[in-house]
Amino acid sequence: MQGLSCGTSRIVGCRFSIYPMADNFIDVIMKALKEVDARKVWMETDDISTCIRGRSEHVFDVAKAIFIHAAKTDVHVVFNGTFSVGCPGDSEGDSYMSENDERLNEYASSKVKVEVATQFALYPMNNPEYMQVIADQVEVAKAHGTFTKGVHYASRLDGDANAVFKTIEEAFVNASKTHERSHVTMTAAISANSPSKKHL
Amino acid sequence: MQGLSCGTSRIVGCRFSIYPMADNFIDVIMKALKEVDARKVWMETDDISTCIRGRSEHVFDVAKAIFIHAAKTDVHVVFNGTFSVGCPGDSEGDSYMSENDERLNEYASSKVKVEVATQFALYPMNNPEYMQVIADQVEVAKAHGTFTKGVHYASRLDGDANAVFKTIEEAFVNASKTHERSHVTMTAAISANSPSKKHL
Repeated sequence: MQGLSCGTSRIVGCRFSIYPMADNFIDVIMKALKEVDARKVWMETDDISTCIRGRSEHVFDVAKAIFIHAAKTDVHVVFNGTFSVGCPGDSEGDSYMSENDERLNEYASSKVKVEVATQFALYPMNNPEYMQVIADQVEVAKAHGTFTKGVHYASRLDGDANAVFKTIEEAFVNASKTHERSHVTMTAAISANSPSKKHL
Repeated sequence: MQGLSCGTSRIVGCRFSIYPMADNFIDVIMKALKEVDARKVWMETDDISTCIRGRSEHVFDVAKAIFIHAAKTDVHVVFNGTFSVGCPGDSEGDSYMSENDERLNEYASSKVKVEVATQFALYPMNNPEYMQVIADQVEVAKAHGTFTKGVHYASRLDGDANAVFKTIEEAFVNASKTHERSHVTMTAAISANSPSKKHL
């Protein structure tokens, strides 16, 4: 996919957490982080979440890789975060915008097969047509074959983690291009290895 | 606080998950649920999240109670969810709007002291003044004494869980009143008992 950032300074960010439902949650997170190459994003972790910022390709590449490497442990792990582009208050970390398109973690992530269940929601800000923007991206998800159904306040996706991340990245990038310098956010809760029966 | 719903049919919803970082995460969640009186909200749980809907008072009352009863186990527990009001697609569950103001879980929740660290973000939809709406509610959080600082894409609150929930409820209700039938969403990640050093 053509990146969102090409030729512009549209910095993309994601503030997310990885929640391993296990006593050894610190180990699961630390081990996953060690397997991820985050050199192409600005990254900061605090006691609540991690924030990564840079070109859209690398933000999605790194977010996906951290989740996938945590989820391949078979522990019940959830990625829960918000992607953002065009926030009027955003500025820091622009130096990462000169990185090239090559995704540093795509090869390793693509080798891991993890089934996930996802709920995501798009929030195109300051846009009277925002419900149409959302509806259009639900159609994109349907075309990807990952869309399962709408639920209150979100859309549900099911499938391989790589396919689901590809869907939400495309939905986010498309929504971000509907206006010049538009501000769009997207929440996503992505769950792997849940003992609960899937609500398909 | 005067509820958002009084005399109107402004149904409020919250789609959230409770993430206990422990092997016995199912027990922690099930035990917390048993301590909560959810009779005044529409409630549905799937394999990713729980959705509660009804009057704003009861949505915040129930969300807070589930989190607090899970967090009092001393397990590292996170509440992560999105509150919503005014979504044009929203309708089901209106019967719960006739409930009175009395919060069924407030007394029990107020007895529990749990320190939390929180990142929250408001998204007033379809509103050219949305950045001002957000800035105004940051001022409200400062007045509550729970505001710690702004971070990329969110505001940080610290303090007792009851005080933090009171802050985000007031911020959400205020933001929801800026326009007639306005559509506002709010994300919140609320963390208790984290072994990480607080980033104050």
